[in-house]
Amino acid sequence: MGNIITYNSWEDKAPFGALKLNQEFRITVKVNENYNVKDISWVILKEDVEIDKISLIKENKKYYNGEFSGFNEIGLYFYYFKVEVEIEGEIKVIYYGKNIEDGSCIEYQYNNINKYQITVYDEYNAPTWYKEGILYHIFIDRFNNGNRNKKINNPKKNSFLYGTWDDAPMYIKDEQGDIIRWDFHGGNLKGIIDKLGYLKKLGVSIIYLSPVFEASSNHKYDTGDYKKIDSMFGDEEIFKELIDKAKSKGINIILDGVFSHTGADSKYFNKYNNYNEVGAYQSNHSKYRDWYRFKENSDEYESWWGVKDLPNVNELNETYMNYIINDDDSVINKWTSMGVKGWRLDVCDELPSEFIKEFKLKLKNIDSEAVLVGEVWEDASNKISYNKRRGYLLGKELDSVMGYPFRKNILEFLKGVISSNQLNNKFLEIKENYPKEAFKSNLNLLGSHDVTRIKTELNEDNKLLKIAVAIQMTFEGVPYIYYGDEAGLCGKTDPDNRRTYPWKHEDKNMIEFYKSLTIIRNKYKALLRGETEFINTKNDAVFSYIRYTSDEKILIIINKSDNEECIELNLGKEARGIDLIKDIQVELNLIEKEADTINLIIPPKDFKIINIK
Amino acid sequence: MGNIITYNSWEDKAPFGALKLNQEFRITVKVNENYNVKDISWVILKEDVEIDKISLIKENKKYYNGEFSGFNEIGLYFYYFKVEVEIEGEIKVIYYGKNIEDGSCIEYQYNNINKYQITVYDEYNAPTWYKEGILYHIFIDRFNNGNRNKKINNPKKNSFLYGTWDDAPMYIKDEQGDIIRWDFHGGNLKGIIDKLGYLKKLGVSIIYLSPVFEASSNHKYDTGDYKKIDSMFGDEEIFKELIDKAKSKGINIILDGVFSHTGADSKYFNKYNNYNEVGAYQSNHSKYRDWYRFKENSDEYESWWGVKDLPNVNELNETYMNYIINDDDSVINKWTSMGVKGWRLDVCDELPSEFIKEFKLKLKNIDSEAVLVGEVWEDASNKISYNKRRGYLLGKELDSVMGYPFRKNILEFLKGVISSNQLNNKFLEIKENYPKEAFKSNLNLLGSHDVTRIKTELNEDNKLLKIAVAIQMTFEGVPYIYYGDEAGLCGKTDPDNRRTYPWKHEDKNMIEFYKSLTIIRNKYKALLRGETEFINTKNDAVFSYIRYTSDEKILIIINKSDNEECIELNLGKEARGIDLIKDIQVELNLIEKEADTINLIIPPKDFKIINIK
Repeated sequence: MGNIITYNSWEDKAPFGALKLNQEFRITVKVNENYNVKDISWVILKEDVEIDKISLIKENKKYYNGEFSGFNEIGLYFYYFKVEVEIEGEIKVIYYGKNIEDGSCIEYQYNNINKYQITVYDEYNAPTWYKEGILYHIFIDRFNNGNRNKKINNPKKNSFLYGTWDDAPMYIKDEQGDIIRWDFHGGNLKGIIDKLGYLKKLGVSIIYLSPVFEASSNHKYDTGDYKKIDSMFGDEEIFKELIDKAKSKGINIILDGVFSHTGADSKYFNKYNNYNEVGAYQSNHSKYRDWYRFKENSDEYESWWGVKDLPNVNELNETYMNYIINDDDSVINKWTSMGVKGWRLDVCDELPSEFIKEFKLKLKNIDSEAVLVGEVWEDASNKISYNKRRGYLLGKELDSVMGYPFRKNILEFLKGVISSNQLNNKFLEIKENYPKEAFKSNLNLLGSHDVTRIKTELNEDNKLLKIAVAIQMTFEGVPYIYYGDEAGLCGKTDPDNRRTYPWKHEDKNMIEFYKSLTIIRNKYKALLRGETEFINTKNDAVFSYIRYTSDEKILIIINKSDNEECIELNLGKEARGIDLIKDIQVELNLIEKEADTINLIIPPKDFKIINIK
Repeated sequence: MGNIITYNSWEDKAPFGALKLNQEFRITVKVNENYNVKDISWVILKEDVEIDKISLIKENKKYYNGEFSGFNEIGLYFYYFKVEVEIEGEIKVIYYGKNIEDGSCIEYQYNNINKYQITVYDEYNAPTWYKEGILYHIFIDRFNNGNRNKKINNPKKNSFLYGTWDDAPMYIKDEQGDIIRWDFHGGNLKGIIDKLGYLKKLGVSIIYLSPVFEASSNHKYDTGDYKKIDSMFGDEEIFKELIDKAKSKGINIILDGVFSHTGADSKYFNKYNNYNEVGAYQSNHSKYRDWYRFKENSDEYESWWGVKDLPNVNELNETYMNYIINDDDSVINKWTSMGVKGWRLDVCDELPSEFIKEFKLKLKNIDSEAVLVGEVWEDASNKISYNKRRGYLLGKELDSVMGYPFRKNILEFLKGVISSNQLNNKFLEIKENYPKEAFKSNLNLLGSHDVTRIKTELNEDNKLLKIAVAIQMTFEGVPYIYYGDEAGLCGKTDPDNRRTYPWKHEDKNMIEFYKSLTIIRNKYKALLRGETEFINTKNDAVFSYIRYTSDEKILIIINKSDNEECIELNLGKEARGIDLIKDIQVELNLIEKEADTINLIIPPKDFKIINIK
């Protein structure tokens, strides 16, 4: 007899996606005429508290409608359906919630209903330059050494420098597995300045720098002094030069802000007595003592994941907040005023909401066009960390998050774990949960310093890699290139994913490929800011979607299989297409004359980007 | 009733010490008149074969004499005494051999007689410049970087450079404890050239360089190419410059020759395919295949102490011998002709005698004034290695050996393990066993790259260190300074004993101390080439000896105790003394007027060097 009701939030809810504060929305539920439905209750919750129960209005035999306008607070709302139906003379109550696989509804026991999520957010305006940009993530020590003769600036005491630029990175550890000396390749800010031309040609408009402040390590997530450029990287003058020269090429710089912990070897903690100030570790009377959480003595302190070199800070401590955010010469003030165009908050999950909000307020105050990005690994709309629901994407916190789910979804599709249709669903899930602006500013990354290089994940199959990049460069959200991915770098997890950029033996073909795609992205508004319509290709190996604005329409079709695949598409009688990849702008006979549907053939492990006219 | 006979080889044998081929020698045995001695047989052996038994001639009631002139082969001879004595009407046979503690004789059971050793050698002429020199041992990577801005020459692939010159050395190992990347400080030949003036002022006349030939490691005992200067150190041109500039300052260069093994990463073995030639590891047909000892396949080969990166060579393989020794462009020829003044043979124990002899023959052939030094850790006169008696000091092999026993004896004395009298005995033992020239060319070392730094051995007690150096600089044999010992370097065993020379924070006081002593040594013939008379000070903590020639006499007195010590010395009625240390050349009232014996007071942990007139 089939399901009693059918509903798909991605189709039967209007508007689609997250809602603004006080925005109204409507749903339509379809009823199976074979059943004698007595009532459909639409139960709405704020988090886990029921706030309303609406009896849907029967439009006709098939459809029930509902409207709700009670979203007067930002946050996460949920809903499910309670259906009363008469079966063989008895009234039965059946609960319907969201299918985990997609937006449809299925029957659940009352105790474990998977509810539909509604994200309700406030004003959300990510800056246009960011949303329409292409980001390049540089791990500074490994990108480029700009000194003559490749001299390395001010090597640190008790550290090691790699013999040659191409040496594979490794950690130097003791028998307990603790890092005992840091290893450096010697990349620096001058080296980035020297490559701005290269990045510009690559289509990049945003550089996200790994931390630049003084610190002992090569990665510098162990801040030693928030107000000083690490002397191996350069100094304030050269940093300013980088900002200015980048700006003159239309490239903005984003910094990595590490505020959940400092280094133990810092001006503030000063465990190793390398700084002149009295550090928190050294004395109860240190002015930094309350920044940290000590137990009985200085050797017992809370640290990031137990790493003793990374003592956690009390982010909400007033002097810390002032130092980072509020003082006239605060950290954020100092660097943002200098021209830094945004911050990426490291380990966002560990930062209190209050800190992030204050940070954002101040940031926008200094530069309303600046951007705040957060390191969040999962769906950032409903993340729970340390047992608390986080409100990253509700308007007052982040503009953008690191799009690890993007990477995960693409990899699962390319590796055959999920079908193209499942991939559609996974993206729709996020698109539904995220505020529109959050989705548009989502960082679509294929790699970062914390995960295996995309090329290695794909078993060094360049064809699959190109497919992944094609999706990245045509997708909604900000393409995020991890330095060297465009040049053929491989690498397993840390430290192998932090190999040096392979200057002089780059994969030139791959670089040209990236360029051809970024040129297309940067040229078409539909790709820069268009909406997305996912297409059900009815072929597990073929993923397709249309990016569109009111006057542009670009069709992307990806075939990940080893075989040529033929896809039937309905594009309307008048449609004509131009393949944007094949020599760019060559008119094709892809669209059959006058028919509603056309058959499109995609070669094995290949893709098409077609400008539909 | 006392001993039946008394004899002390150090006093009752003439001449003292080792003997030349066919040299005659005589002994006198004193008999206890309380016994009725019937016969004293003097049993002489070549190694363990009895070659003569001489009935000593009774001179008078007290003394028996013997003469022997049958030393017609070089090698080790031994002797003991068989005494027949009538006790209570019965003839008893008693065996006498050498007391292990000194030169005296004591009774033994026949089965375990400790015999007296006679070393019989052939022509033995160590070059004068060497015997009268002061040697400075440089571990090149750690001594000095002579490049502008301290640039490091041609760092090797997959290696690490220390961040700063003063970083403490460490090995970079994997979990199995194997070294996986070599670590470099970047010392080089240019750096040595720059410091020749310093070494000259220090009184140095011989530089012994750690291996200079191309190799992967920082120590370069894993030779990659015997005919090439390692490019991190410099090149042939700069090496020649070093030889020439050193020579112009009266300093000779000695190389470290590593001929018991090569590197696996070498032109010859070529395990890692870094060389163009077909290496022994790579093919059965390699012209170097027979240099090595393979079992069934290339991965099974004999290597030095099982270190797979150091495959052992068949030193006696003809092509190897030719390559190293006999070819016109042989290794020894190439470098000796360039001006290298000698070679130190690494792990001498592992080299066949035949190889060493051929090497010496060729060396002296190229330059009769060149010197051949061997790495031997024990008494080199009677060393047995791999069950074979070695003939290092018999004339046809080494000129000189590394004097590790010197270091051991001094340390045992300074640490209170042995008394001054035991120290006398230990030195006399070696002096007796070594050919005169061998003792005079013995390298009196306090440290090397293979042992704990002398300062660390002495718990950083600079007073004790100065005492040790005072002995070293006034002793018979060649003073051997391990780079940095003069500048206050500390360090436990490898790699800690290979710290960098502490430029800019040297212990200047210690350097001046070394200089004051080398000035004295280089000034007085008695110290440069005099004989030694050890003095029984009757004080365990006071070690004393006289160095003398026919017209010079220098008294050295060392007090290692924490107290002032007073010593009674018999120096003859006329003696006057000049203290050579106190402001150098200040006349003293040390020698009391007209008396035969004088009392000399030595402050705690101090010493005196007195020129006796």
